[in-house]
Amino acid sequence: MVRTSPTVLALSGGVGGAKLALGLAQIVPSDALTVVVNTGDDFEHLGLRICPDLDTLMYTLSGLSNQTLGWGQQDETWQFLDALKRLGGDAWFGLGDRDLATHVHRTALLAQGDSLSAVTAGLMHALGVLTQVVPMTDDNVATLIHCQNGETLSFQHYFVRDRCEPLIKGISFQGIETARRAPEFEQLIASGDLSQIIICPSNPFVSVAPILDLAETWKALKAADCPVVLVSPIVAGMALKGPAAKMMTELKMPSTALAVAQFYADTYPGLVDGFVLDEADAMSAEAVSALGLTPMVTQTVMKNLDDKQALAEAVLRFSDELAG
Amino acid sequence: MVRTSPTVLALSGGVGGAKLALGLAQIVPSDALTVVVNTGDDFEHLGLRICPDLDTLMYTLSGLSNQTLGWGQQDETWQFLDALKRLGGDAWFGLGDRDLATHVHRTALLAQGDSLSAVTAGLMHALGVLTQVVPMTDDNVATLIHCQNGETLSFQHYFVRDRCEPLIKGISFQGIETARRAPEFEQLIASGDLSQIIICPSNPFVSVAPILDLAETWKALKAADCPVVLVSPIVAGMALKGPAAKMMTELKMPSTALAVAQFYADTYPGLVDGFVLDEADAMSAEAVSALGLTPMVTQTVMKNLDDKQALAEAVLRFSDELAG
Repeated sequence: MVRTSPTVLALSGGVGGAKLALGLAQIVPSDALTVVVNTGDDFEHLGLRICPDLDTLMYTLSGLSNQTLGWGQQDETWQFLDALKRLGGDAWFGLGDRDLATHVHRTALLAQGDSLSAVTAGLMHALGVLTQVVPMTDDNVATLIHCQNGETLSFQHYFVRDRCEPLIKGISFQGIETARRAPEFEQLIASGDLSQIIICPSNPFVSVAPILDLAETWKALKAADCPVVLVSPIVAGMALKGPAAKMMTELKMPSTALAVAQFYADTYPGLVDGFVLDEADAMSAEAVSALGLTPMVTQTVMKNLDDKQALAEAVLRFSDELAG
Repeated sequence: MVRTSPTVLALSGGVGGAKLALGLAQIVPSDALTVVVNTGDDFEHLGLRICPDLDTLMYTLSGLSNQTLGWGQQDETWQFLDALKRLGGDAWFGLGDRDLATHVHRTALLAQGDSLSAVTAGLMHALGVLTQVVPMTDDNVATLIHCQNGETLSFQHYFVRDRCEPLIKGISFQGIETARRAPEFEQLIASGDLSQIIICPSNPFVSVAPILDLAETWKALKAADCPVVLVSPIVAGMALKGPAAKMMTELKMPSTALAVAQFYADTYPGLVDGFVLDEADAMSAEAVSALGLTPMVTQTVMKNLDDKQALAEAVLRFSDELAG
C-alpha cells in the first residue's frame, strides 16, 4: 500500500487491544491506520498454525467476533471438536468449525512459502477489513511462561489448557533475538511518517513486550517524531480481560494502573509520553506524572461500539495535545 | 493382535467394498476378518492427509456413514467449508466439520511419526470398530489418471474436482515399485493362515489393482492355500458407484461383468478362482467359466444390511465350495 498521509500506529495484543483498534478504525481513514499485532502467543496445535491475537483482530474488525465467548467467531459450531474428542484427539484448545477454516487455510499458505504478513493481508482482505493489520514479525517468536514450580509452558498451554492457574516467576520470548519486524512494520518505522503511536490496553508482559523487545522496536518508536500514548490495561486493580493482574501479583508488583506506568518507565525509559487512566484510577494521576508520564483520565472500559469510538477519539486528542 | 483362527481376507476400495466388508463383519468373528484397503486414492489437501477409502470403511463399519450422500459422516455440517470459501480457500473437496476431525487428527499423528497402519488402528478402535482394517501400505502410493488430453491428474482431482469428466487413456501408481505391504498385511500373508480371500466389488483399475500390484501381492495371494473369490463391481453393464464402467469404455473394453473377469484373467492369470455375478448378468456365466473362473450367480446389489449380510454369506459359502 502506498501511503499518502501520516499514519496512526497502534500496537495490540488480543481482546482489549482489538476493541480500541476497532474504535480507531471507526474514525481514522483506513489508509492512515496500521495495527501491529503480537504473535508471541502463536503456536502450532494439531499441525495447525494458530495466531490468537491476529485472529481476534481479524474477527473484531470484520464484525465476526463472538461477543458472548469473547473469542472466536459468532454463529460458531463445535462439530469438529466433538468428533475430535470422540477420536481421542487433543481437544483442550477450543477450535470452532468456522474458526478452523482460518487456521487450515493459513497453515496451507504458510506451508507453500507465503509469509505470515502476506497470509494475514489476504485473510483481512477476504473478510473486508480495510485497516492494515500486520503481525509484528514473520519469524517465529514464542512467549514462554516460566512457572514457580519450575515448569516452562508455551503461552496457550498456560492460558487456555491450564487456565492461567500456574504461578509465574518470569516470561521470555523464544526466538526474539533473531526475529525481524515484518516488512510493513519495518517500512512504516523507516518512513518516519508516524502521526501517533498508541499502545492499546493489552497485557504489558505477554502482548506488548514482545512487540517492543523485538529488534529494539521500543527504541525506534521512542525516536519517532510523535507522541507515544499508552492506555492502561488495568482498571481499578483488575485486568478487564486475561491474566495481567494475576501476573503482576506473582511478579511482585501491585496490580494497579500506576504499577503499569512504573513498569513501562523502568523497562522502556522515555518511551511512553502519555498514559491514559480510567476514571476509577484518577487518584493515581499525580503519581504517574511523577514518573515523567503525562496522565490523562477518561472512561476506558469499552462495552459497546460507542465506548470504543469515544476512547479512540479521546486518545487521539490527547496525543495531539502532547504533540503540541 | 495374536490370531487364533484362520482369517478371511477382504480387499476393498471405497463404497462398494465397504458394503460387503460390513456384511462380512456381521457374520465373521472380528478376530477372523481382516480388510485390506486401497490407499492409492489418498492425497494431501490443505496440508491434511486424506484417505477416502479407509475413511469410508471406518464410517461404514462404525455405523457413522452418511447414507444420503454416500460419503462422509452422518449428521454432518459444513461450517468449515463455508468459512473456507469466504476466505478464498481451496474448497472443491467436500470436507464436513466432523469428517475434518479424522483428517486433522490423522495428519497430526503421522507428523509425529506414527505409521498409517497404527493411526488407522487407533481411529478404528476409538470408533468401536472391532474388525481389523489395514491400509495396503504405510508408504506413499498415488494413483495417477492419464487423460486423453495429455493431462495427468491425481485421483481425487479426477474423481471429485473434475467429476470423472476427463476421458482417460491409462492409470499408473506412483511409488508402487518401492512400496511395501503394511506390517499386518505382510504378517497375514506370511502366516499362511488364510481361509478365504475375497475381492470386494470395487473398481478393478483404481481400487483393487493398487493392492494387487503392490509388491506382487497378487502372486502371494495366488500362492495362498485358499480360494480367491471376486465379486463383480459391474452389474448389468453399469458400475453401481463410481467411474468403473466409464473407465472401461474409455480403456476400450466393454463395460460388462464378463470384461471384468477377462481383465483379471489377463492381468493376474490364475489369481481368481471364483467370480460372483449378479443375477442380471447370469447370461455371462458360461463365458466366465470359459475363462477358467468358476462363476456363481446371486443377487449382488446391496441396498440394506440384510442384502450385505446375504451376499457375504453367499460369497463365503461359494468359497467353501471351491475349497472343496
